[in-house]
Amino acid sequence: MRVRTKAIEVPTWQALQRFFTDLDRDIRRLKHWGRVADYIPELAKTDPAQFGVAAALSDGRIVCAGQARQAFSIQSISKVFALANVLAVNRERVWCRVGREPSGDRFDSLLLLEQEQGHPRNPFINAGALVVTDELLTIHGEELLLPRLLGFLRQVAEDEDINVDLKVARSEANTGYRNAALAQFLFSFGNLGHPPDQVLRAYVQHCAITMNCLQLARAGRFLAGLSAPPASLGRSDIRGINALMLTCGLYNGSGEFAYRVGLPSKSGVGGGLLLIVPSRASVAIWSPGLDERGNPLAATIAAERIADFTGWSVL
Amino acid sequence: MRVRTKAIEVPTWQALQRFFTDLDRDIRRLKHWGRVADYIPELAKTDPAQFGVAAALSDGRIVCAGQARQAFSIQSISKVFALANVLAVNRERVWCRVGREPSGDRFDSLLLLEQEQGHPRNPFINAGALVVTDELLTIHGEELLLPRLLGFLRQVAEDEDINVDLKVARSEANTGYRNAALAQFLFSFGNLGHPPDQVLRAYVQHCAITMNCLQLARAGRFLAGLSAPPASLGRSDIRGINALMLTCGLYNGSGEFAYRVGLPSKSGVGGGLLLIVPSRASVAIWSPGLDERGNPLAATIAAERIADFTGWSVL
Amino acid sequence: MRVRTKAIEVPTWQALQRFFTDLDRDIRRLKHWGRVADYIPELAKTDPAQFGVAAALSDGRIVCAGQARQAFSIQSISKVFALANVLAVNRERVWCRVGREPSGDRFDSLLLLEQEQGHPRNPFINAGALVVTDELLTIHGEELLLPRLLGFLRQVAEDEDINVDLKVARSEANTGYRNAALAQFLFSFGNLGHPPDQVLRAYVQHCAITMNCLQLARAGRFLAGLSAPPASLGRSDIRGINALMLTCGLYNGSGEFAYRVGLPSKSGVGGGLLLIVPSRASVAIWSPGLDERGNPLAATIAAERIADFTGWSVL
Amino acid sequence: MRVRTKAIEVPTWQALQRFFTDLDRDIRRLKHWGRVADYIPELAKTDPAQFGVAAALSDGRIVCAGQARQAFSIQSISKVFALANVLAVNRERVWCRVGREPSGDRFDSLLLLEQEQGHPRNPFINAGALVVTDELLTIHGEELLLPRLLGFLRQVAEDEDINVDLKVARSEANTGYRNAALAQFLFSFGNLGHPPDQVLRAYVQHCAITMNCLQLARAGRFLAGLSAPPASLGRSDIRGINALMLTCGLYNGSGEFAYRVGLPSKSGVGGGLLLIVPSRASVAIWSPGLDERGNPLAATIAAERIADFTGWSVL
Repeated sequence: MRVRTKAIEVPTWQALQRFFTDLDRDIRRLKHWGRVADYIPELAKTDPAQFGVAAALSDGRIVCAGQARQAFSIQSISKVFALANVLAVNRERVWCRVGREPSGDRFDSLLLLEQEQGHPRNPFINAGALVVTDELLTIHGEELLLPRLLGFLRQVAEDEDINVDLKVARSEANTGYRNAALAQFLFSFGNLGHPPDQVLRAYVQHCAITMNCLQLARAGRFLAGLSAPPASLGRSDIRGINALMLTCGLYNGSGEFAYRVGLPSKSGVGGGLLLIVPSRASVAIWSPGLDERGNPLAATIAAERIADFTGWSVL
Repeated sequence: MRVRTKAIEVPTWQALQRFFTDLDRDIRRLKHWGRVADYIPELAKTDPAQFGVAAALSDGRIVCAGQARQAFSIQSISKVFALANVLAVNRERVWCRVGREPSGDRFDSLLLLEQEQGHPRNPFINAGALVVTDELLTIHGEELLLPRLLGFLRQVAEDEDINVDLKVARSEANTGYRNAALAQFLFSFGNLGHPPDQVLRAYVQHCAITMNCLQLARAGRFLAGLSAPPASLGRSDIRGINALMLTCGLYNGSGEFAYRVGLPSKSGVGGGLLLIVPSRASVAIWSPGLDERGNPLAATIAAERIADFTGWSVL
Repeated sequence: MRVRTKAIEVPTWQALQRFFTDLDRDIRRLKHWGRVADYIPELAKTDPAQFGVAAALSDGRIVCAGQARQAFSIQSISKVFALANVLAVNRERVWCRVGREPSGDRFDSLLLLEQEQGHPRNPFINAGALVVTDELLTIHGEELLLPRLLGFLRQVAEDEDINVDLKVARSEANTGYRNAALAQFLFSFGNLGHPPDQVLRAYVQHCAITMNCLQLARAGRFLAGLSAPPASLGRSDIRGINALMLTCGLYNGSGEFAYRVGLPSKSGVGGGLLLIVPSRASVAIWSPGLDERGNPLAATIAAERIADFTGWSVL
Repeated sequence: MRVRTKAIEVPTWQALQRFFTDLDRDIRRLKHWGRVADYIPELAKTDPAQFGVAAALSDGRIVCAGQARQAFSIQSISKVFALANVLAVNRERVWCRVGREPSGDRFDSLLLLEQEQGHPRNPFINAGALVVTDELLTIHGEELLLPRLLGFLRQVAEDEDINVDLKVARSEANTGYRNAALAQFLFSFGNLGHPPDQVLRAYVQHCAITMNCLQLARAGRFLAGLSAPPASLGRSDIRGINALMLTCGLYNGSGEFAYRVGLPSKSGVGGGLLLIVPSRASVAIWSPGLDERGNPLAATIAAERIADFTGWSVL
């Protein structure tokens, strides 16, 4: 039934590598790098003026520049992989417990959660990710959750050297009072099946997973359709995850980013930014300084530059 | 610089026409068609169980089925063309007065407007569209606003037979108390340059523009990149409009629709739904019965079926 | 059944008059008088540094000081008399349409009104006063509303020289966009029986009633139980009005004022403040400069001083 | 300076005792008693259809009826004594950390707390009471907090037999997830000086204090000015506590209760209701069945009947 074809131009590997090198040089001239996340003490020590970028292309090649091999805490980007892991096992149940609408509010707002009776707007705000983590606990049990999620990431990234920084996990566990409030609140509405403390512990652990740009770019390939999806994850699940990244991936900066870049993406307060270009590329960018909405400042500038150069916007 | 090509399969015209015919037959077997918008008396008279669909393809051909020639009130879909018209003239000013983030709330909510001091979240909620209309008044003046906007639509649709149903405009003018509240509220925050009454009058008039599916599908081609963009509208403006349609086009059902369909789209309470498939097609669907969020019920089901069949999702 | 008595000390007329004279002198030494209401152009011309005070005592005597004979716009204080006038005719209906709870929000907030589906929290926020005005329109008709309300005030104040400043009414009518938004919004929820424009017109007229401290103090006597209540107004209606004044009379400064002064009271943006001391006195104070919550700054300071001196707090 | 006196009729002891006996009989004929608080398992076992009432009069006499000697969990009524205890030591600090305005929202709402950056509206909503408890921890230390608060109550009630039901405290500690969310949230805003767990533990303990109507009525006398205020508690502190009880004492039913009864009062989910009649009486009523706002149903009916009979309203 599908017979006609249409030519779509993509930049050559050489052109892209040259562009990445130039981009790295330009970004390093930035005057303002934003502020590192200071609410997690362990992350507060990081120098904000760092930058790395890597792209896994449809032909299997990788382009990269800057500190692409520097490991960082993926933080909220783990929400994407946690959701994928849950959807691969039981997609019905999670969508009864969490919505799929953008929130328009801060990532850790309790307002909407109260108005909507403990039903988080989407799985990428903290409340929604706690519910996803609760599902992970049901699926894997507390002991196996982290090993299984790491196994999932190692498999999709084809790299065994992905681990958790337990110092960061402990650091966040000690100071994440607002997340603790969210967990208690969800529990009070009956939307957590495990004790709040247990869910929080598992949550800060998968947020403390450490990757570098090369690993993260490769891990995102299945979302771009460049590698086989893990297990029973269907085409519509992957499209759905991309839709959530496009509408909710950068908290209350998601709409603005969609307007300027037009690509599914997910940020983390560790400075990471994962960019999915369906059928073409999976891009990981890192810059630890954050803007006032908690998104990595230099990385979002770089993402816009990449979208302009490549014409990769899906819109 | 761009040299490599990638084959993308698209359905043939014949396959698509056959699918549309089947789709029309299946949709007509629906048991529940939703309720027509009863807050605009003139629209309340419409039979909800009607359906039409048309697609303008990249090769210039059109496929259609059902009541594709039946004119309907485009209502909120006019917000897309009003915004395009404003961006073509002065893109800086409008983005100082209205945001680009999804709202997560009802299309006529005053809550966020108060929290955010009269700065509407995006141009597709009613408050934002009133600000866009205020810009149109500045650009064209009251006398010429409607003729110019109709001219714009006739040009992009290549069809002179597009008009306004003044009975619908009057009907909405008489009963749109909530929009009147929004306009007064915006004015009280200094975010309207013209008197609230004048803005409301212009707003209900462009919402009362009447088109059929064939006309609307053709009018959307410039957003899909299938026809030259009007005047000074740039590639990034068009990408931005598509981003807003994807994140905010179906009110507080936008995220869900992006999850299931993955295409920029805009609904209207007259039952219309415009679907943009970048580089491939502009699709218009019509079914006057609405779901509980104010989106056309049968049309959104049809959109999901079309996306499944064609694989047109951008995600 | 009631036989035992208890002595309650009250200051003598002489002591009180001496205190008022001293108070007037002290208040005039204030460095900060606040800002006059600038959203009503006609009021914006007033000098903020003015002060007057008058008290009608239980023995029929009056004490006063400062500019007690200077007429001012009673503004929101008219809400008390409008409510009393409505309760005297039909107390059931109004309490189906407006609540009796403090709002905790600004006097012209739309937030709560949306959350609570057009049912205003209480009759002293603007939305509630619009509903009360709508009831007045039903009772008296548009023509007679103002004459009847003026008649009511002249009767309770025993003074024929109470009038409306139509310049102030027009001034507010021209700029009260936020009230217009509230009225349209109420109408959209079906909680206004008359067209929003008509309700607004009547509302700004009764807010533009002009009185001086002597007149206002005498007008409040029926609320203090010092004069016969007008018409069919019962003891429980009067107690209820006092309760509303105590919990909602100074907008979102009501709780603080109750804490410090402990007396039912109602402020207006014209600078007036009516203080009810059940069984003992009705006190009117005037100072046109307002604090950041829209309450008269010097008048609230004076009220606290009076309460301290007299021990009149009900708590 | 104060020389004139005014006679105020009060019912005789005999008349009041007869009325209480009749009231007890009438209340027991109620068809609907409301539901006991089921979120604290230990309280959920109570039979809702119970009733007791006691009044401590200005002459030192006590009138009572029904189950006036049946001990119950005072729950939120402890917030009044906790506040009094804090004000007696350090009134400045607590008023920097908590407001004095009615909230208009549920007693355990997080909404306002987020909007107002962790500054609770008043000390009688749960968030505010947690802050007061945090102050108690600073004043007494964890070990001595409960003994000292019990000592305070025993002193004002002149009764050594007032204790804590540790089963109720444990029961609430195990299920109070929403309070835990509030505490974590306050801590995240820097408005708790002790760890959330410690504050919660102290909070549920003082809420689990057990008293009967006779004890509670006697304990309230200092608020009515019928006994010497404890320690350094001033007249203005007591007036302020009464003001808070009047404006915020029955959660989001406070305005309605002030309208109908006109007396400072405080309810608890254990079914208790403390009513302060300045200069005349301190009344305790108990009925464990609650209305939909969490206030004791039969007790509020009884309070209204008592106010009607005695004319004790302050308004």
